[in-house]
Amino acid sequence: MLNLIIAEAALELVPSEISRHASVRNDASRRELDPSRILLDRSIHHAAMLKLRDDYKRGRPDLVHLTLLSVTSTPLYQTGRVKVFIHTCDDVVLEFREGTRPPKSYFRFRDLMQQTLVERPDSGLITLFEATVPRLLKRIGSDPAIGLSVQGKPISLEDLAARLEGAENPAVLVGGFPKGHFTPQTTEALDELARIDANPMDAHVVAARLVYEVEKAHGKSSS
Amino acid sequence: MLNLIIAEAALELVPSEISRHASVRNDASRRELDPSRILLDRSIHHAAMLKLRDDYKRGRPDLVHLTLLSVTSTPLYQTGRVKVFIHTCDDVVLEFREGTRPPKSYFRFRDLMQQTLVERPDSGLITLFEATVPRLLKRIGSDPAIGLSVQGKPISLEDLAARLEGAENPAVLVGGFPKGHFTPQTTEALDELARIDANPMDAHVVAARLVYEVEKAHGKSSS
Repeated sequence: MLNLIIAEAALELVPSEISRHASVRNDASRRELDPSRILLDRSIHHAAMLKLRDDYKRGRPDLVHLTLLSVTSTPLYQTGRVKVFIHTCDDVVLEFREGTRPPKSYFRFRDLMQQTLVERPDSGLITLFEATVPRLLKRIGSDPAIGLSVQGKPISLEDLAARLEGAENPAVLVGGFPKGHFTPQTTEALDELARIDANPMDAHVVAARLVYEVEKAHGKSSS
Repeated sequence: MLNLIIAEAALELVPSEISRHASVRNDASRRELDPSRILLDRSIHHAAMLKLRDDYKRGRPDLVHLTLLSVTSTPLYQTGRVKVFIHTCDDVVLEFREGTRPPKSYFRFRDLMQQTLVERPDSGLITLFEATVPRLLKRIGSDPAIGLSVQGKPISLEDLAARLEGAENPAVLVGGFPKGHFTPQTTEALDELARIDANPMDAHVVAARLVYEVEKAHGKSSS
């Protein structure tokens, strides 16, 4: 079973420090919700976000959604051979029960994430808890834990997939943010930082290719 | 250059026959738009859509968006080696100029598609014209034109990619709809109908894998 972690994901509720900004207030009132109950979204709250620390890495729930779907729409996931976690930039983890299909509609995904982050219900399909990346890796007991980053050592995706296929309980981290790199806290918790391309690629492309190569490696090892 | 056609795509404006249905009127008035200027969307207009012919194949702009991004976010596209067309279920074609990056935010994509389908501007980035699949293939002058479908003959994606890499001006059609199959009109215009998996896969997964294998085949043939 592969553990796939969308790490430091740009998914969070609007932080209180910008809840009174016009772009946030307008969005909240149009949707008839309190600002504390809406997702931070750069395409709407750009002006307000300029005040936030590390703003360039935050407020992209659309990218997190794309990345999640690029994993959960695959045969590997649908046959229960990948477990997906979203670890957010503020250290909240959403663990998806194997085989759970998240909404394909962005609206429905957004509403589900808002509800999950605000009410923290335990639906059995998504389990929410607080954890940093080091704690999450410890909880999973993953071995090895490999992060994908252009800052890593070059490896072909085929070779990486073969290694993952040979491991008992591996974890792969894909950055769930639009720009930038993993924090030192994340990097230090990894067994390895690997790069699969010389240029940065969107998280959803990386995740799709990884899952596909793992499927192919599994096909080879089981045939 | 690979021509990738998202064919019979579930992308269209609300048809006039259901423009007076409550689910459409409510959506239009909430967004302060005329019903004729909004995209048909099953997640919002489900009740109204039950009256439509072939309703199960229609009203999924979210899937079209996902499929488009799974192509346009890749190195192959970004280096100008894929040309993308969206052919809609009502025979409108959107041709994307090489390298054009569509919006990643679903909201912005929706608004862009609405504007493009209503006003039909020629921005230079997206060219719009009316054409059936047979006419589109003739216009492209593609050889061969291969459709991907579970109804096709089995081929590995690696072998398909090698064939495409060896062709001058090939076209691949991926169905841009949630369920069902290509129409007979489409199928008859193809040189070949091929299947890459025994089970149906989402269009965005198929497109992502196809582009990835073509990239790998290109790397092999050019190294």
